[in-house]
Amino acid sequence: MTMSRTAPSPAAPALIAIDWGTTSMRAFLFAADGSVLESNAHPAGVMNLPRAGGTAAFDAAFESACGAWLDRAPALPVLAAGMVGSAQGWREAPYVNTPVDADALVDGLIRVESSRGVAVAIVPGVLEPGTLPDVMRGEETQIVGALAGDAGLASGAAGALIGLPGTHAKWAWVRDGRIERFRTYMTGELFATLRDHTILGRTMQAGEADPDAFRRGVGVARESRDAGLLATIFSTRTLGLTGQLAPQAQGDYLSGLLIGHELNALVAMLAGVGTTLAAQPPRLIGDGRLCERYLTALREFGCEGAQVVERATERGLWRIASQAGLVGAAARAVS
Amino acid sequence: MTMSRTAPSPAAPALIAIDWGTTSMRAFLFAADGSVLESNAHPAGVMNLPRAGGTAAFDAAFESACGAWLDRAPALPVLAAGMVGSAQGWREAPYVNTPVDADALVDGLIRVESSRGVAVAIVPGVLEPGTLPDVMRGEETQIVGALAGDAGLASGAAGALIGLPGTHAKWAWVRDGRIERFRTYMTGELFATLRDHTILGRTMQAGEADPDAFRRGVGVARESRDAGLLATIFSTRTLGLTGQLAPQAQGDYLSGLLIGHELNALVAMLAGVGTTLAAQPPRLIGDGRLCERYLTALREFGCEGAQVVERATERGLWRIASQAGLVGAAARAVS
Repeated sequence: MTMSRTAPSPAAPALIAIDWGTTSMRAFLFAADGSVLESNAHPAGVMNLPRAGGTAAFDAAFESACGAWLDRAPALPVLAAGMVGSAQGWREAPYVNTPVDADALVDGLIRVESSRGVAVAIVPGVLEPGTLPDVMRGEETQIVGALAGDAGLASGAAGALIGLPGTHAKWAWVRDGRIERFRTYMTGELFATLRDHTILGRTMQAGEADPDAFRRGVGVARESRDAGLLATIFSTRTLGLTGQLAPQAQGDYLSGLLIGHELNALVAMLAGVGTTLAAQPPRLIGDGRLCERYLTALREFGCEGAQVVERATERGLWRIASQAGLVGAAARAVS
Repeated sequence: MTMSRTAPSPAAPALIAIDWGTTSMRAFLFAADGSVLESNAHPAGVMNLPRAGGTAAFDAAFESACGAWLDRAPALPVLAAGMVGSAQGWREAPYVNTPVDADALVDGLIRVESSRGVAVAIVPGVLEPGTLPDVMRGEETQIVGALAGDAGLASGAAGALIGLPGTHAKWAWVRDGRIERFRTYMTGELFATLRDHTILGRTMQAGEADPDAFRRGVGVARESRDAGLLATIFSTRTLGLTGQLAPQAQGDYLSGLLIGHELNALVAMLAGVGTTLAAQPPRLIGDGRLCERYLTALREFGCEGAQVVERATERGLWRIASQAGLVGAAARAVS
C-alpha cells in the first residue's frame, strides 16, 4: 500500500477509537473530518472477557472489532476509553485527579501494543480524591465530547451540570472546560437488584410503560427528601397491598422513586455550589429512553430546559485524539 | 384425661402461642403464670411452605410444632401472630388501622380450625393508611410485649420510640399504650442484596467484625444526610479502590452506611412529632447482635441510653392471649 504525502481526503479513514466499557465495546472508524465512517458493537466488555485469557482476550476482542480496518490501513492511530484502562482492563491507565480538562487526560494517556504491533492509546479515568472519593472511566471522555460540541459550555465560568444516567449514574459539575467535581449514584443497578432480588419484585408485573406511575414515584421521593430512600421504597409494595398501585405500575413507580431520590441528592450537591436545578438545567448524556425519564423527572422538580447531548462519546474520543496529536495536522506531519 | 376444676398449678400448661413469620416459626408452651415451659423453632416460615400445599401445609407444620403438646393437653388455647395471618398465610386476618392498642388487636383476632379440631386464633397485622401506607405483621405483637413489660412505656402520654431492626426494620411511635405511626426500612434486605448482587460485593471479603469500619460508615451517612443513600453507597467501592478501606472492612462499612441513613430518616420522623433521638432513646427489639449494631449507631448519633427489650415476642403473645380471655380467670371459668 502506497501512502500519499498529500493531505488526505476528508472521507479517508484517520482514526480508530473504542468506547470499551464493563459490558460492551463499540469501535468507530473516523474520517479525517471527524465524521464516523463505520462502527460496530460487541458484547466484549471488560467483565465479559475470560479472566484466564489475560491480555490475550483483549487482543482478540480488539482484532475482532478493528482488525479489518487495520488490514486496510495499518498505520491508523488507535484510541480507547473506559474500563479497558482499569486494573481489570487491558492495561491500567492510572487515574488523574479532579479538576480535569482534556489536556490533563492527554497527559495521562498510556499505551499498550497489540499483537499486530499497533499502539493503542488508553484514556485515563478520573479520581475525585477526599474522604468520599469517587471515580469514573469512560464518562470523562463523554463529558469532553459534550464540551467539544458546545462552546458556551466549554468556556462557561459560571459552571454547568452534566448528567450521565445509567447503571452507575454520574453527575458532574464542569466549569471553564474542566470537570471540577462529580458523584456516582448507583441508581440503575439498585433498581435492577431491588426488582430482581428483593420482596419488591414479587408483586411487580411487566407491562406497558406507565408514565403516571413514574411521575408519582418522582413526586413521592421529592416530598420525602428528609425521610430518604430507605423510608420510601417499601411503599412500592404497600401501595400494591392496599390496592393503590397496580402490579404493572410498580416497576415504573420504583424507578421514579429512585431517580427522584437521585435528584434530591443533586439538589443538595448544587446547593453546595450555590445554585439550584431550576437555574442549572443540565445536559444529559446516555441512552435516549433513559434520558427521557430523567427529563420527565427534572420537570417534576421544576427544572425545564434540560437537553440531551447527542454523540458525546464519539465527539469526546475525537477531541482527545485531536488534542493528543493522533489526528489532524500533527498526525499528518508524522505520517 | 380428667380436667381439674380447681385452679391449675402455676406450672401447668395454659397456652400454646406461635410466632409464625416469613422464614421461620417458633412455638411456645406457656404455663399459667405466663412463663415459658417449652419452645421449639422450625424453618416452616410462610414463604418456606409449599404453595401447592395450601392450608394442609400450615396444618402439617402446626402439628409438627405443637402436636405433642396438644396430645398431652387437648384443650389448650392456641394463638399465632405474624405472616401466618397474611393473604399468603394459613388464613388472612385483615389489617387493623393505626392507632392500635392491644384491645384493637384482640377485636381483630380471626380463627382457623386445625385438622384435629383446635381453634387457632390469629393476631391481625396493622396498617397505617395514607398516601404512603405501611404494614406490619408480627411486630405489633412484639410492641405489645414491650409495652407489657414496661408500665411507664405503656402509660406514657409523651410518646416513645420502638425500633425493630431486621430484614425489614420497623420503627414505631407509641403513646398511651397505642401504636400511633410506624415506618418500614428495608435496611437488612438492601444490605444483603447490595452485597450479594451488585458491584459493591465484588471487592468485599469476609472477615472479623470491624467495629471501626461500621462506625465510620455510620459517621459518613450522618454527615451525608442531604446527599442521601444513593450518593454515598458507591464510596464502599471507591474507598477500597483508593486503598482507604480494606476488603474485609467493606461489609461493615456498608452496614454502617445503611443503618446511618436509617437513623437519618428517623431523625426526620421524630422532627415531625417535635422531638429528637437524643431526647427519645429508643427501645430495641430483635436479634441481640443486630441490636448491638443499632446501639452503636445510635451512640454515633448522640443518642445514649437506648435499651434492648428482652422476650418481647413471648410477652406480647401472652398479653394478647390474656386480653382475649384465652388464659387467666376468664379462660378458667369456661374450661
